[in-house]
Amino acid sequence: MWKETKTEMVEASKGRASLGRRALNALLSCTGDMEHFAVFMQDKFVGLQLVVWCLRGVSRVTLANNPLSGALILAALFLASPWQGLLGTLGVLASTLTAVIIGQDSAEISGGLHGFNGMLVSLLMGVFSSAGDWYCWLLLPVCLGSATCVFLYSGFSSVLDRWDLPVSVFPFNTVIVLYLLCTGPHNPYFPHHPAAAPGVLDPNGTELVAVEVMRGIPLGVGQIYACADVGPSLLILVAVLLYSPLLAFHALLGSAVGTLAGLSMAVCPDLLYSGLSGFNGALGCMSVGGLFFTFSWRTHLFAIASAFLSAYADIALGNLLGSVGLPACSWAATLTATLMLLLTGTLAAYRIPIGQVVAPEHNLLSKSHWEAGSTAERESTDV
Amino acid sequence: MWKETKTEMVEASKGRASLGRRALNALLSCTGDMEHFAVFMQDKFVGLQLVVWCLRGVSRVTLANNPLSGALILAALFLASPWQGLLGTLGVLASTLTAVIIGQDSAEISGGLHGFNGMLVSLLMGVFSSAGDWYCWLLLPVCLGSATCVFLYSGFSSVLDRWDLPVSVFPFNTVIVLYLLCTGPHNPYFPHHPAAAPGVLDPNGTELVAVEVMRGIPLGVGQIYACADVGPSLLILVAVLLYSPLLAFHALLGSAVGTLAGLSMAVCPDLLYSGLSGFNGALGCMSVGGLFFTFSWRTHLFAIASAFLSAYADIALGNLLGSVGLPACSWAATLTATLMLLLTGTLAAYRIPIGQVVAPEHNLLSKSHWEAGSTAERESTDV
Amino acid sequence: MWKETKTEMVEASKGRASLGRRALNALLSCTGDMEHFAVFMQDKFVGLQLVVWCLRGVSRVTLANNPLSGALILAALFLASPWQGLLGTLGVLASTLTAVIIGQDSAEISGGLHGFNGMLVSLLMGVFSSAGDWYCWLLLPVCLGSATCVFLYSGFSSVLDRWDLPVSVFPFNTVIVLYLLCTGPHNPYFPHHPAAAPGVLDPNGTELVAVEVMRGIPLGVGQIYACADVGPSLLILVAVLLYSPLLAFHALLGSAVGTLAGLSMAVCPDLLYSGLSGFNGALGCMSVGGLFFTFSWRTHLFAIASAFLSAYADIALGNLLGSVGLPACSWAATLTATLMLLLTGTLAAYRIPIGQVVAPEHNLLSKSHWEAGSTAERESTDV
Repeated sequence: MWKETKTEMVEASKGRASLGRRALNALLSCTGDMEHFAVFMQDKFVGLQLVVWCLRGVSRVTLANNPLSGALILAALFLASPWQGLLGTLGVLASTLTAVIIGQDSAEISGGLHGFNGMLVSLLMGVFSSAGDWYCWLLLPVCLGSATCVFLYSGFSSVLDRWDLPVSVFPFNTVIVLYLLCTGPHNPYFPHHPAAAPGVLDPNGTELVAVEVMRGIPLGVGQIYACADVGPSLLILVAVLLYSPLLAFHALLGSAVGTLAGLSMAVCPDLLYSGLSGFNGALGCMSVGGLFFTFSWRTHLFAIASAFLSAYADIALGNLLGSVGLPACSWAATLTATLMLLLTGTLAAYRIPIGQVVAPEHNLLSKSHWEAGSTAERESTDV
Repeated sequence: MWKETKTEMVEASKGRASLGRRALNALLSCTGDMEHFAVFMQDKFVGLQLVVWCLRGVSRVTLANNPLSGALILAALFLASPWQGLLGTLGVLASTLTAVIIGQDSAEISGGLHGFNGMLVSLLMGVFSSAGDWYCWLLLPVCLGSATCVFLYSGFSSVLDRWDLPVSVFPFNTVIVLYLLCTGPHNPYFPHHPAAAPGVLDPNGTELVAVEVMRGIPLGVGQIYACADVGPSLLILVAVLLYSPLLAFHALLGSAVGTLAGLSMAVCPDLLYSGLSGFNGALGCMSVGGLFFTFSWRTHLFAIASAFLSAYADIALGNLLGSVGLPACSWAATLTATLMLLLTGTLAAYRIPIGQVVAPEHNLLSKSHWEAGSTAERESTDV
Repeated sequence: MWKETKTEMVEASKGRASLGRRALNALLSCTGDMEHFAVFMQDKFVGLQLVVWCLRGVSRVTLANNPLSGALILAALFLASPWQGLLGTLGVLASTLTAVIIGQDSAEISGGLHGFNGMLVSLLMGVFSSAGDWYCWLLLPVCLGSATCVFLYSGFSSVLDRWDLPVSVFPFNTVIVLYLLCTGPHNPYFPHHPAAAPGVLDPNGTELVAVEVMRGIPLGVGQIYACADVGPSLLILVAVLLYSPLLAFHALLGSAVGTLAGLSMAVCPDLLYSGLSGFNGALGCMSVGGLFFTFSWRTHLFAIASAFLSAYADIALGNLLGSVGLPACSWAATLTATLMLLLTGTLAAYRIPIGQVVAPEHNLLSKSHWEAGSTAERESTDV
């Protein structure tokens, strides 16, 4: 598709904007990062702006940055479980507002960067709570945990900036582990299920059902939001597709790789069926294949390697943390993506500076522009 | 009080030093960092200087830097238990001497920065030892552990300097955990009590005694030195008060916050009564409210947030490390304080560069001087 | 020996190369870093070059950089167990080839820096596997694990470069721990022995046999390659001796210190007999005493301190990781060596910049040259 566009661009004379280009522009206005929308919103009512910031925050969890994707994902979560939807909304709202209050960078806030960690913390608190839905006391740790994410995001970014690394979901992973540790196994106010290690096999060796395993692959995308239903998971996949088809493709591919890794290590079948084996692979694959590196067949291969590494590391960390009743969350994918961003050699040549990361399709279009700019940029940052 | 001083300073003509100012100066000469005393000691006998360095080191544990505070604290420790007092003295001496021998920066040594980690290691070794008081073989690991702290301090400072962060008690926390791990649960030479997780509740649910819980708040200040007696704890509080009333206020406030956090998580009552729930909160609150940031109502709010974060993180780490029989020490407060120092946004505007940290009252007085200086300073360090 | 050489150098007139110097040159051409050999190989057949890179990689495990040492060590491993020899060869080959494929720096590859982590991972996978020798499925994780080391090496080097620190065996330690965690305790495809904590004492208190303990000291050098036979261990020691007598002396010294530390902590006698107590001490002693610092009596003392620190930290980490069935590998020595390299004060004055590290004897010879160069070098890197 992009190739055709390029050919057209050559064909079209400077004076007349080609029809194909106009149609593309209309499509692009709803996909990708929707930067025009951000400009359009700039002088609107603050409450409305906050909604857009939060929706961007919701989509940021899957590395997207598009308010429409965010709205779709939120709808999918409410569809799966209204309680979880409420917790997610509260989480993203609480952390975005905290970021405003403690005076974080406004560009970061409006880009939704302070919302997604809080949202994930809230969703996971809900999933691990054993007090059932609509247990209102849970809203207290949800708000506090989401607010804490902003502190961690800000602190981590000061450290990681030195290597031009994104904070990604480190704050979420830290806060949820601390919350589960803090409430402990038998807390009277905030009880929660302990997480089991993935390697703990059923003694009476149940056979794997191939269809269920296959169904686990799209569920792996839903599990990024701790959602284990097929319908909402597909809706989340559509939301990613809206932001970037390339990112959605790598999400599915990574989830499949994760499932394969899970099979090769004979993990508990439930993990394969529920998509929990796949979501770390999906995140690891997306960050390399779609977002932080210019797409090419080489980065595609690295993305597959990253998916395998994330998936195996997830099983390892799951076994380690499971021995103290903790979940491995997305530590594996986050650490692997960070490792990939630090890599020297072939992959480093394709790396996009964090400040210039946009939807991969946009990036491919503006590649030549970017390449010219990046050289100057890099030289100035390499002190 | 400081406001009055300011008014007086305006009133007083340049020629005549006002009475109020003179009285203030007399008071200030014994409080705060006692910099004049450091100048006065410069050409004295080396042994005497070493005593002052060690006393400064003793006070550094509570973030103070005042030899008189140090002497008071040491007296309090000897009062609580002569054996613990001896261990503490030996620890601060061993680590300060090691720092001299391996050629550490003399300004750091004379400021007591190489003494406090060793002292804490020695005190905790004594507390955890199950061989009873006056078990002389313990002096061997006490000396070696204190000496190791200097190595860790020096190494950590090379890393943390990049972000202008203090090393604080990272070396102590590392060394004591390694010591307890190394000697293991059943060591024939250096036996020790295993630490229990704070979440392990008594099955026959004893009721909380309000008075005991209240008494735990001042004990939380004493627990910074692993001291669980009321009298010595109050003496330690007086020592902090001598250095800076603001710091002492935040110590008590933080200890109260920590106790509150402990109550909300239903930790074991013994932890509340002994002040162990409070001391991480106290340390977290002191570092933000008193020392590393210019005092204002905003930093005060951040200090309370820091106290809560420290206290909850302490419960979480206590549950984690308790599962392998280790204590959480002051990891929580140290990590939280480091996080707060890394924060961007509102709080960062109040941050005092590490090299210019003095007692908060002195800092408020010289605020205008400092603000002018810091801008130039920051620009030059931001490479 | 070096003193005599110096005297001769003075005696010999400029026109005639002295006999002693010529003999020394002949000897030096086979010892040390064999830089002339690297130049000689530059335009040879690529397959032959790859062999040399791999042999250098093999020797890098003991901090040496000499293809002849590598060949000797490989022979020792094949002598001890042909299966382990095969695994080691495959590991060093797989990781060196991966480094070529993902476009790592060619100077690093030809120096063997991408081979030694992969080799160690392969050897340890073989040692921990409970499926017996010649279990061919093991070759799959061996290749994948070795390849992963290259990713970690590259990523870690980006981070550690900021402090001019070597990556050393961090990737090996990470990968082997992840592999053992991932396969878990009861994996159907890749079963492995769980590691026991060193502090778990035999209840019926067997007495120590002094001769066996003494034999553990040279075995400690062999255990660097997970080899527990006396003959091959001595051959490995000879290989180190070929690279640098000073390094070999510190290896033995460190192993003795480690055994002493093990005795003082009453570790399980099997660890003392097999040399497992000694190898961390050996590595810690070698890195300070021989390689990264100019040799003098001061660095020698620091090397002994480093050996003690490594040995005690190894016991501590062994107890911690043993509680979840993991081995402590060489985490202790790696962390201690990194700490020593970060140290400020006396030791820092002797530090050799990582890019200029050569065999200690060569370094002593060219000390004056280096000292002149390093000052300029340091000034330019200190931004």
